[in-house]
Amino acid sequence: MAAELSFGERAKLCQNEAGRRVLEVMEQKKSCLSFNPDVTTAAEILESVAQVGEHVCMVKTHMDVVEDFSQDLVDKLQKMSEELNFVIFEDRKFADIGNTAKLQYKHGHTSISSWSHVTNAHCIAGPGTIKALKEVGLAENPKRGLLLVAQMSSEGTLADGGEYSKACVKQAYDHEDFVFGFVAQQRLTDHPGFVTLTPGVQLKAGGDGLGQQYNTPESVMAKGADIIQVGRGILNAPDRKATAAEYRKQSWEAYEARIGK
Amino acid sequence: MAAELSFGERAKLCQNEAGRRVLEVMEQKKSCLSFNPDVTTAAEILESVAQVGEHVCMVKTHMDVVEDFSQDLVDKLQKMSEELNFVIFEDRKFADIGNTAKLQYKHGHTSISSWSHVTNAHCIAGPGTIKALKEVGLAENPKRGLLLVAQMSSEGTLADGGEYSKACVKQAYDHEDFVFGFVAQQRLTDHPGFVTLTPGVQLKAGGDGLGQQYNTPESVMAKGADIIQVGRGILNAPDRKATAAEYRKQSWEAYEARIGK
Repeated sequence: MAAELSFGERAKLCQNEAGRRVLEVMEQKKSCLSFNPDVTTAAEILESVAQVGEHVCMVKTHMDVVEDFSQDLVDKLQKMSEELNFVIFEDRKFADIGNTAKLQYKHGHTSISSWSHVTNAHCIAGPGTIKALKEVGLAENPKRGLLLVAQMSSEGTLADGGEYSKACVKQAYDHEDFVFGFVAQQRLTDHPGFVTLTPGVQLKAGGDGLGQQYNTPESVMAKGADIIQVGRGILNAPDRKATAAEYRKQSWEAYEARIGK
Repeated sequence: MAAELSFGERAKLCQNEAGRRVLEVMEQKKSCLSFNPDVTTAAEILESVAQVGEHVCMVKTHMDVVEDFSQDLVDKLQKMSEELNFVIFEDRKFADIGNTAKLQYKHGHTSISSWSHVTNAHCIAGPGTIKALKEVGLAENPKRGLLLVAQMSSEGTLADGGEYSKACVKQAYDHEDFVFGFVAQQRLTDHPGFVTLTPGVQLKAGGDGLGQQYNTPESVMAKGADIIQVGRGILNAPDRKATAAEYRKQSWEAYEARIGK
């Protein structure tokens, strides 16, 4: 088997500009870590991102749970993303027909397309969702990109790596100028331009009582993850910065081992 | 085959209070029509609902696309729902793991659990999503209920009536105290306490260029729909009120024919 390409080499093979930036940031910062501040106030988001931003390649948000969401929050987060060099990923999981997804991406209180570098969608409604999001995203800014939720980490998920996941990969190949990867539990395709993000990661394996199942950084990197998504594992740690550094170290070392460095 | 029960009789067999109210309103108003004002301002929602509210059993919203969403909009819509006797259904299509869905239902700018009688979820993440939404919804108000998106109308959908849809039905049976039916293209179970809502309905069959595919009221009622969901077919009509009356008439007559009246 040929040695796996580095993130920097893979950036050149990615057809989407946001995806290229993600891979470049990973190479520059030596980080496979996405931090998910799943909290409900702007102050908590900004505080936690300030604490861990230096260690991450990506910050993943759920702005629809933030009580005091405002343009000011978005402006501050974008400024931090430039200063600390990370990509912003609104984890919206669009899951409606094209016409509705289009409205949801562009309009409404959070107006996601105006500020989030990256967002994601389920493949459930068919390729019309991707087409519609692409229409909005690339018109707004050629640096927008999309991830597809091809496989989930929760108990009893119907996106379990089988036919459903294969159909998602097919949808991605058909829209490589906008889709640059997958949210999945393992690598689903050999195409080096596609990035694999794996949620449900903690330093210790286990569950949350609401169906979420956790794996360790090392085990998910071994299955082909490029980015590990960590929320509560960092948020609830006594020392968030040191904990983020630990997740970064463990995942980067697993990556280096994988590419044979 | 035994004659199909009426909506009024089925209300007694529904285990969820919001679901019972839906079936009762349908019987009282002789309406199988849900109106979907997929517009981006509060004024347009209120104006269109005022025009057609007398004809509908349900108003289905996408509050995340409304630019000027506010508590005032929700208060006015709830007042109309009492005066004109319809149920409010926020079509959020929750599609994340339990912990996130819980935050999305309760928190954030639109705070859905505080005002929407009914909402819906995809089954993709597994039963943890339903459990989490139920925890929030029934604690907020015992009159909250959930629909599961078991089958979609868009081109290339992966929720196409096969194994995926069967797994959704299973999830519904396991949570009958909260889940009272399905968004689907046809009846998926004989349980008379479950309601089937069918989107993608227009007076003429066709498509929208973004993957949506339309069927007529008569054809979807014949496949077991209880409620037809109509958005653009009414919104874009020159006379919305008369058009809503026509959808109501066609679907109610198809229902009466089905139950042998």
